[in-house]
Amino acid sequence: MPKSAVRIRLPSMKDVAKRAGVSQTTVSFVLNNVESANIPLETQERVLAAIEALSYRPNAMARQLRLNRTHTIGFLSDNIATTPHAGNIIQGAQDRAWAQEYLLLVVNTSSHVTVEKAAIDLMLERRVDGIIYATMYHRAVTLLPSIREVPTVLLDCFCADRSLPSIVPDEVRGGRTAIELLLRKGHRRLGFINNVDLIPATFGRLQGYQQALAAHGIAYDQALVCAQHSDQAGGYRGVNSLMRLAEPPTAIFCFNDRMAMGAYDALHKLGCSIPADVAVIGYDNQELIAAYLYPPLTTLQLPHYQMGQWAVQHLLTLIENPEGQNGHPPVQELCECPLIERSSI
Amino acid sequence: MPKSAVRIRLPSMKDVAKRAGVSQTTVSFVLNNVESANIPLETQERVLAAIEALSYRPNAMARQLRLNRTHTIGFLSDNIATTPHAGNIIQGAQDRAWAQEYLLLVVNTSSHVTVEKAAIDLMLERRVDGIIYATMYHRAVTLLPSIREVPTVLLDCFCADRSLPSIVPDEVRGGRTAIELLLRKGHRRLGFINNVDLIPATFGRLQGYQQALAAHGIAYDQALVCAQHSDQAGGYRGVNSLMRLAEPPTAIFCFNDRMAMGAYDALHKLGCSIPADVAVIGYDNQELIAAYLYPPLTTLQLPHYQMGQWAVQHLLTLIENPEGQNGHPPVQELCECPLIERSSI
Repeated sequence: MPKSAVRIRLPSMKDVAKRAGVSQTTVSFVLNNVESANIPLETQERVLAAIEALSYRPNAMARQLRLNRTHTIGFLSDNIATTPHAGNIIQGAQDRAWAQEYLLLVVNTSSHVTVEKAAIDLMLERRVDGIIYATMYHRAVTLLPSIREVPTVLLDCFCADRSLPSIVPDEVRGGRTAIELLLRKGHRRLGFINNVDLIPATFGRLQGYQQALAAHGIAYDQALVCAQHSDQAGGYRGVNSLMRLAEPPTAIFCFNDRMAMGAYDALHKLGCSIPADVAVIGYDNQELIAAYLYPPLTTLQLPHYQMGQWAVQHLLTLIENPEGQNGHPPVQELCECPLIERSSI
Repeated sequence: MPKSAVRIRLPSMKDVAKRAGVSQTTVSFVLNNVESANIPLETQERVLAAIEALSYRPNAMARQLRLNRTHTIGFLSDNIATTPHAGNIIQGAQDRAWAQEYLLLVVNTSSHVTVEKAAIDLMLERRVDGIIYATMYHRAVTLLPSIREVPTVLLDCFCADRSLPSIVPDEVRGGRTAIELLLRKGHRRLGFINNVDLIPATFGRLQGYQQALAAHGIAYDQALVCAQHSDQAGGYRGVNSLMRLAEPPTAIFCFNDRMAMGAYDALHKLGCSIPADVAVIGYDNQELIAAYLYPPLTTLQLPHYQMGQWAVQHLLTLIENPEGQNGHPPVQELCECPLIERSSI
């Protein structure tokens, strides 16, 4: 039978003192390198040997209480369970936190306000040094007042009055990049299957589409833009409506990769070859879809990892230099969505 | 200009005492409901009003130090960033922890042993009450000795000597369920595109395949089983090799949904209709793929959420009743993979 793996009581400073044959005060002096205590070298070595032998760990919590810093960041998010990107947001945040020995206390609220309130209370009680508030798609958020008791950075979201620092994807620039690539390849009839949801990505990408056309002197044609639910079926329907036009598009910008997946199916059913007959570009770079469609999908990447890193980096700046931001409006950062070129254009 | 949102110093017990015009001892008596102190009701109310007015929060860390319990669980995982299921493992763990006011301190190590060692050290220094060690696919793990200093439960993995409690998917039963469904639908030539990786899922699902055939008196035909890389291209190749047999299968069990996605492409290219000509069943229930293929894919679900819940529940049992497991071998739990029926069979 395997031996029980659990050892319940951790060694204390008292245990170390006993083993080394010294007082707890001496152990404390050695641990804290108090030179004025003039502990003989031989005694210091005996204490260190006892620490080693017992695997004694100084109680970080007690030390943190003295220093009034816990090196812990609350990471509050709405819904990571149903979001394939979620891992990258958390990984980016964690990697940056970790580099400075901060750990993340993670709570997902599934957007329940009562859970959110309780989570913030628990985080504040545990004296987190700051909070990252992350959403799983770019949107405006309404925040509970208590979150403002510590430095807070918004990740993939923003509050309407811009009273907290925030980082979100640059949707306008992403839309422009997609359309400029299609224009460079010689396309002039550019379809856009947009999302019906009234969210910043919908407006931003449309604005980018319009800016790129305008910059190339191409008139905006409302007939080439349709709005559908942002899933495979929406992409499928979008292609069927656009390709029925008297002058159908030669290239289609899909609001996301899932819609592009449905667009592929519809184009194949219509006997259109990608990209020879119709070029397709997506958005999100959902690896699982984009890299494995035939042909692999050219798309724009949502910069989740980078946004996670930036949010923590900015939060650490606020924590470590709380006066540094006085008089400046909270930073509202836009993060570029890089173009991932594959074979669909 | 938006006003600065950050209030740096949290109110202390001293602030409460000052505002209420009482001593800190009185505040402490009121907070801790010390009846023997005989604090007049009017004074109690003044203290409570001051607490309310200042949004004073008792310092949970100080209280935890006294109680020798932090209500914090370390959640150590290998790689959530590249894993679409990861969110559900964490969500299941968190929901169960949360129900008992435990929070998760999350660190992903990307399987770097030095990061893992440092993470465990930090977690122990912060006096986590226990650790969940999670992997993103079912596998054997080698653990650093220090993790055993607190109660630990393995999630989606196990250690070779079974010296720690563990929960993993029941791969054998999953394979059997898939094949029994195909047999019930009348199929007798059953192809299996397995994975080349030598991992428990590969062996377990094959064992389930063999058990189901044996139970129905069908001889095992090695020619119907092939091993491929566990991605779309592997599924594509697998179909092409199986369908070239003199007597090809009428149904194909794919090791995972990504392989099923490639199998769909290959079958469509061969002019086979799904499920009329060839039935297909996958594994994993990767929502993004399985629900949106044409036709939607019947598959088995990896029970990530349930395993996350079980792991925390079991850990809390160990934390709260450390002696309860004495003399019993650590539990090795198998979690059922539910069948998700769609339209590919």
